Amino acid sequence: MARPHRKRLVVVGGVAAGMSAASRARRRDPDMEIKVFEKSGYVSYGACGLPYFIAGLIDDHHNLITYTPDFFWQQRRIEVHTRCEVTEIDLDAQQVTVWDHVEAREEKVSFDVLVLATGGSPVKPPLENVDLENVFTLRTVEDGMAIREHARSGQSRRAVIFGAGYVGLEMAEAFSRLGLQVTVIEKMSWVLGSVDQEISQLVEQELEKNRVELIKNEEVQGFEDDGSGRVCRVVTSKGVIETDMVLLAVGVEPNVALARQAGIALGRTGAIKVNEYMATSHALVWAAGDCAETYFRVLDEYDYIPFGTTANKQGRVAGENAAGGRSVFPGVVGTSTLKVFDLTVASTGINEKRAEELGIPYVTSFIRSLSRASYYPGVQPIFVKMVADARNGRLLGAQMAGYEGIAKRIDVLATALHNSMTVEEISKLDLSYAPPFAPVWDPILIAASQASKEVGKA
Amino acid sequence: MARPHRKRLVVVGGVAAGMSAASRARRRDPDMEIKVFEKSGYVSYGACGLPYFIAGLIDDHHNLITYTPDFFWQQRRIEVHTRCEVTEIDLDAQQVTVWDHVEAREEKVSFDVLVLATGGSPVKPPLENVDLENVFTLRTVEDGMAIREHARSGQSRRAVIFGAGYVGLEMAEAFSRLGLQVTVIEKMSWVLGSVDQEISQLVEQELEKNRVELIKNEEVQGFEDDGSGRVCRVVTSKGVIETDMVLLAVGVEPNVALARQAGIALGRTGAIKVNEYMATSHALVWAAGDCAETYFRVLDEYDYIPFGTTANKQGRVAGENAAGGRSVFPGVVGTSTLKVFDLTVASTGINEKRAEELGIPYVTSFIRSLSRASYYPGVQPIFVKMVADARNGRLLGAQMAGYEGIAKRIDVLATALHNSMTVEEISKLDLSYAPPFAPVWDPILIAASQASKEVGKA
Repeated sequence: MARPHRKRLVVVGGVAAGMSAASRARRRDPDMEIKVFEKSGYVSYGACGLPYFIAGLIDDHHNLITYTPDFFWQQRRIEVHTRCEVTEIDLDAQQVTVWDHVEAREEKVSFDVLVLATGGSPVKPPLENVDLENVFTLRTVEDGMAIREHARSGQSRRAVIFGAGYVGLEMAEAFSRLGLQVTVIEKMSWVLGSVDQEISQLVEQELEKNRVELIKNEEVQGFEDDGSGRVCRVVTSKGVIETDMVLLAVGVEPNVALARQAGIALGRTGAIKVNEYMATSHALVWAAGDCAETYFRVLDEYDYIPFGTTANKQGRVAGENAAGGRSVFPGVVGTSTLKVFDLTVASTGINEKRAEELGIPYVTSFIRSLSRASYYPGVQPIFVKMVADARNGRLLGAQMAGYEGIAKRIDVLATALHNSMTVEEISKLDLSYAPPFAPVWDPILIAASQASKEVGKA
Repeated sequence: MARPHRKRLVVVGGVAAGMSAASRARRRDPDMEIKVFEKSGYVSYGACGLPYFIAGLIDDHHNLITYTPDFFWQQRRIEVHTRCEVTEIDLDAQQVTVWDHVEAREEKVSFDVLVLATGGSPVKPPLENVDLENVFTLRTVEDGMAIREHARSGQSRRAVIFGAGYVGLEMAEAFSRLGLQVTVIEKMSWVLGSVDQEISQLVEQELEKNRVELIKNEEVQGFEDDGSGRVCRVVTSKGVIETDMVLLAVGVEPNVALARQAGIALGRTGAIKVNEYMATSHALVWAAGDCAETYFRVLDEYDYIPFGTTANKQGRVAGENAAGGRSVFPGVVGTSTLKVFDLTVASTGINEKRAEELGIPYVTSFIRSLSRASYYPGVQPIFVKMVADARNGRLLGAQMAGYEGIAKRIDVLATALHNSMTVEEISKLDLSYAPPFAPVWDPILIAASQASKEVGKA
C-alpha cells in the first residue's frame, strides 16, 4: 500500500481517549487524514452510565453514546471503523494490521503518527469455572446489554458481586433497583479502598439500609455449574452462596498487548509509559487513557489510575501533540465520586492507609458537619476526613460522604491539592455561604482548621 | 476604676466577628479577661438566616442563635453584655464608655487591648418619609421579628422591596412564600450587580416565573403616609405604587462612628483601615467584620466586602492577635451565593463590567452545560460565565446559575482564584465525575477551556 501524501494519524481505540485525541488532532490540523479503529461496535460512549442503563434509569443504550461514527465523519472528517481490531503494529514499516470483524478481512494501514487508546479490561481472576455463562464483567456497551438482559429476564432473583469498589457498589444499587437480592463479596476488611474506614463504614451502613448483603474478608475461589453451563453457586473461602448471576468487579488492567508486541516501553505499573506530552518511548507514538500511566501530582510519580475524565483530558493532549502541538498534561490528583443508593462518597489524593504504607509522616482530621445551616430545613450530615503532611501541613488527600453537596465539594479540595495548599491555607479559603447550601463555616474549613491544629502539635 | 491585674480584652460588638474574636482570644490565652459589649439583645446569631425566619421556614428565632451569652460564660469564661452600647473610646486612657440600655446606666471600662467588631448597618437613603412605620431594613434579629410580624399580620397584602441585591432577592422569595404580592424596584438596568447580564437575566426569569414584579431603571423618591404614620404608597421617578410595607435593601455601610471619634484611621472605602493582621492604626486596637475593610486578592487592594463568612474569619485573626498571636488573614476573592426561588446564583472574583471599568484587558466565556450526565434522569442546565485576563489568561472571576450543583461548584473557582490559576490550568483540573453529579467534562472545565481559546486569540 502506497504511503498517502497527506499526513495520516491512526488512532487505536475509539472510546474516551481515542475520540478525544482524534477530535483534538482534527482541530489542530484541518488537513490531516485521521482513521480510528475500534474493536467493539460502539465509539464515544459513556461507560460510566452503564450501571444506570442496567438499572433501567436510562431506557435506550443509544442515550449513552455521545457521538456516532457518522457524526465524526460528517462534522469532523474523522474516519471511524467499528468492529475493526488492530492486531499488530509495525513501527519500522509504520503500519498497523487491522482485522475487520464484519467483513472478516485483514488490512494493513500505514500511519505517520499513531495514538494508542486501547483502554483497559476488567480484571478476570483465574477462578475455577470463571467462564461459565452468567459470570459477567462490565466494560462495554455489549457487556451492559448482556447483563441488563439477564438481570431483567425474570430468571434471576439473586446476584453476587465480587469486589466492593466503584463498579461493584454502583452495580449493587442497580441490581437492587431491579429487585434482585444482592450479595457483595470483598476480600479486604472494608469496602471502597480509596477511602479510610471512617468513611467506608458509612457506605456499609448504606448497603445494610438497602438490604444488600456484604461479606468482607472473603475470597471467591470459583463457581459451580448448574449442569447447563450456567453459574448456580459461588464458592468462597468460607462457604458457598447460591446465585443466578455473578459480576466480577475487581479492577481494571491496561490493554498493553499491542504496545508490548511493538516494543513500546511499559512503566512500572504495567501500563504504557508516557511523559507529560503523552508521548511514549517511540517518537511517532502517543498514548492516552486506560492503557497508559498517569502523572499523579500528589506523590510526584507515574501511577495507573484509569478514570474516564482523565482519559478524555489525556486524549486531547495526545491528539494535539500527534498533530504537531506541544500541549502538556499536568497530571491528576486522584479525584473520584460515587453514588451508592442515597449516599454520595468522594475522595481526592491519598488516604491515611496509603500515607502510612508510604511512610509519610501525616496528621488527620475527621469531622461531622452539615450540608446547610443548622436551622435550614432539609439539613443533612456531611463527613469529612483530611490527611495532611505532618512536616509542612500540605494537604495529601481528603474523603467525604453525605447525602447532598458532596461531589462538587471534593473538587474544592482537588483544586487545593493541585495547588499544593496547606490545610492552614485551606482553612481560610473564601468559600461561598448561604443557609440553603452550607453552614457559615463550610465543612471543608472546619476539617482543614482541625487538621491544621494537629500539624501544630506534630 | 482600677486597672485589672489580668490583661483585659474588650470586644465591641458580639455578632459574627466579635464572638469569633473573643473565642479565639480565649483559646490562645486561657487567663485573659474578656468582655464583649453588644448593643442589640442578641449575640452570635445567623443574620443570613433572617429571610428564612421571616418566610416561616424556621419557626423560632432562637434557632438562628448559635450560642447564648450563658454558653460563652459557662464554656469559655467570656463575659457577654447584651443591650450594652459602647458610646465612646478613649485610647489614651485605655477605656470605653458603655451605656447599659437595660439598667439605663453608664460605666467606664478599661482595656489592655481592644477589638472593634461594630458591624455594618443597612444603608437608609434620605428619602422623603423614610421613617414611616412599615418602612423596614433588615439586619438584626429584632428587625427580622418586626418584619415577620408585620408581613404575617394579615394587614399586609403587598410589599415593595427597594434594591435587587442579595437581601432584596432573598426577601422577594420570603414575602412571596407568605402570599404577599411583591414588587422589586432596582435603579440599575439589571438585578444582582455582582453578576453580568447573561446570569442576571436568568434571575429575572426566575422572578417572573414566580410572579414577582420587577421594575428596573427606577429610583425610589419617597413614601406616602396613610394618615396614621404608616406607609401606603411608594413614589418613584416614574409613578406611584400602592403598598402595605417597604423593605429598603440597598446595601450595607460600616459602623465607624466610634472608630472615627477615637481617631482610628479609616480606609478609602470609609471602613476601618486594617492590615493583614487585622490591626488598625492604633497599636492596641484590632478590627474585624463589617466595620472593617477586607484585602481583596483579585485586585490586590483593600475593599469593602461585608460578608458573614469573612467576618468570622477576620474575627478569629483579630482575636488571636489581640491575645498576642501573629495570625494572618489572607484576604478574600469575593465569593457569594444566593438562592432565589428554585434558582441558585453564585459568583467569585470580578465580573466583566468591573474588568471593563478598571480598564483590565479581558476575555470571557459563557456556556450552557448540564448538572448531570445528559442521559441521567433529573439533569438540569448550568450556566457559567468566566472572565480572564487577556494578557496572561489568569482567572479574574466567574459566575454561575442553575438548579443544582451551583453553590459548591463556584468554590472550585474561588480556590482557583485564590491560587492565581490561569483558565488553561483550570481547564485541566482533575474534578470528580459520576453521571448523577456532572457531565464527563464538568461545566467548569468547558467554560475554562473556551475562555482559554479566547486568550489565545487575544
